[in-house]
Amino acid sequence: MSYFRPNIEKMQGYVPGIQPRAPGVIKLNTNETPYPPSERVLKAVRDALDPTLRLYPDPMSTPVREAAATVFGVTPEMILVGNGSDDLLTIAVRSFVGEGELAVVPNPSYGLYTTLLEIQNARITYVEYPDDFSMPAGIAQPRAKLTFLSTPNNPTGTSLDPDDVADAAEAISGVLVVDEAYADFADTNCLELPGRLDNVIVLRTLSKSYSLAGARVGLAIADEELIAGMTKVKDSYNLDRLGMAAGAAALLDGEHMRANVERIRADRDWLSARMAELGFEVIPSQANFVMVRCTAVPAGTIYEELVQRNILVRYWDKPRLSDCLRITIGTRDELNALVAAVEAILRGE
Amino acid sequence: MSYFRPNIEKMQGYVPGIQPRAPGVIKLNTNETPYPPSERVLKAVRDALDPTLRLYPDPMSTPVREAAATVFGVTPEMILVGNGSDDLLTIAVRSFVGEGELAVVPNPSYGLYTTLLEIQNARITYVEYPDDFSMPAGIAQPRAKLTFLSTPNNPTGTSLDPDDVADAAEAISGVLVVDEAYADFADTNCLELPGRLDNVIVLRTLSKSYSLAGARVGLAIADEELIAGMTKVKDSYNLDRLGMAAGAAALLDGEHMRANVERIRADRDWLSARMAELGFEVIPSQANFVMVRCTAVPAGTIYEELVQRNILVRYWDKPRLSDCLRITIGTRDELNALVAAVEAILRGE
Repeated sequence: MSYFRPNIEKMQGYVPGIQPRAPGVIKLNTNETPYPPSERVLKAVRDALDPTLRLYPDPMSTPVREAAATVFGVTPEMILVGNGSDDLLTIAVRSFVGEGELAVVPNPSYGLYTTLLEIQNARITYVEYPDDFSMPAGIAQPRAKLTFLSTPNNPTGTSLDPDDVADAAEAISGVLVVDEAYADFADTNCLELPGRLDNVIVLRTLSKSYSLAGARVGLAIADEELIAGMTKVKDSYNLDRLGMAAGAAALLDGEHMRANVERIRADRDWLSARMAELGFEVIPSQANFVMVRCTAVPAGTIYEELVQRNILVRYWDKPRLSDCLRITIGTRDELNALVAAVEAILRGE
Repeated sequence: MSYFRPNIEKMQGYVPGIQPRAPGVIKLNTNETPYPPSERVLKAVRDALDPTLRLYPDPMSTPVREAAATVFGVTPEMILVGNGSDDLLTIAVRSFVGEGELAVVPNPSYGLYTTLLEIQNARITYVEYPDDFSMPAGIAQPRAKLTFLSTPNNPTGTSLDPDDVADAAEAISGVLVVDEAYADFADTNCLELPGRLDNVIVLRTLSKSYSLAGARVGLAIADEELIAGMTKVKDSYNLDRLGMAAGAAALLDGEHMRANVERIRADRDWLSARMAELGFEVIPSQANFVMVRCTAVPAGTIYEELVQRNILVRYWDKPRLSDCLRITIGTRDELNALVAAVEAILRGE
């Protein structure tokens, strides 16, 4: 006999990308930025590192909330701070979808949406992206309590037209989560939607563009009523004092972030061109990673061969993804090593 | 029209104790320790504060898990690390209680149990503690999926006999959470239960005895199968790198923790005696706080008068608690100031 709910018993659980502890690995598998966070972040944490660690943190993460409001040009009451944007995805699912109720997930997309809905024992309808990864037909399902879109989309890197997202938000019946974890690397975003549509939650994270995956800071931007209700669902103290100090300082140093983003965008173009020259089909990316489709050699084989060479990329043995690899934009040296390794693999070495 | 689930719409949300940002307040309201964390904690965070903040943390918080396994004398596979023990309470509710299913909550106890079950839309049966706050009759309810006990109990400070807890665990049908947030301040604990009963989860936190409320580190100790299943429900990266470094270092400096606990236990006895002399009924405490029942002057009045004097204690205007105050054991100076203020209030000054 199991003590677990049947849906928990049956589900697999989300499998995050490998976090190797051995040195010498070229890690292009979980979309971290290769550049360190701002020096101001390290200083802010050092300054916060004192005996006040004995005290609970601010429940609303006010310093982060206020910094985010300034950066995004909204009121602090339109911001909810999460322990990473995964925390905010969890809060959204628990706020809006009851057991057996409908949620809509595009495919392929971020696997955690499915995991969180399985934990909630929701009913999931998948809608397929067309081959160009523009807005999926059928995104607006009657009776959907929650619909997910990620733009730029993980793992394809493709971006949706903000006008199409606005149209979708108006057509759907429940709440739309627009997961913009990678938006700082893109030409467009949907930040203007929460101010005029009361059912849109835009999610941002400091894990990618702000080089703070290790600090766990995510942001939801939405109508004040949505934020107030979701506040009831979040853990009382979901950010610790140190992550909070790091997050506020990072947001206030946008210049550091943007300089890193520029390097990554340039290297994304460079890698895309190199992979195309090698015969891969390169899906046009607006994120800090590139998805390529492998034709000459199976993607799974290239993945395994790269692991042998201490290079980690991401591979899923799933429909629509099993002939693809997702490659995070590392430093130019790391990308050169990757390209050389792929060339060798293609030559059968 | 609301986008929220009806249970979320209707619930109040948990109200944490006030976290004042103004200096000069004597803060005896949220059971923090008045003494700073170990110097080794501050050093460990300083050492972790480097460019690796750009990388995701270890999903299982392995350094904390291994340190906790050593401290508690169990295998690492019997430990789940949470973003505070509140995170682990959330994980337990989502793992074991479906919508409309039964959970048992003793009264009075930690208010978050109710909040989390309301979020889950579970059915709650409350069982009343007897006047001596020993094991409530009716704790073992048929069809209960999850039962909560906190020992020492918040807010009463009273401790249950571990044999009674073991008997309860054997009698109940589902999972028993034994919330031992305050156990380091007590004479007894239930740590031996998870090794022999497969339905018991003991929760610990570093927020109280280890002086790390600001770092958000909680621990679940349970049968390996329970831990494995709950792992599917937790957020992928629920602790950040800095909190993780703090937590592992704190656990490895038990000497620092025990020295602080000894001072707090001595001051608990001192405060209990002083409050009894002032005519309060003092409930015997095994925690780092003391609950007193007020007879001469209404508890709410004393609470408000203390706020006027910049002294925060905890007061609930709820059945069985509305004639009581819960006072965290601060430094002796803080407790002296509290006692002097209470004396003045009783004199009508």
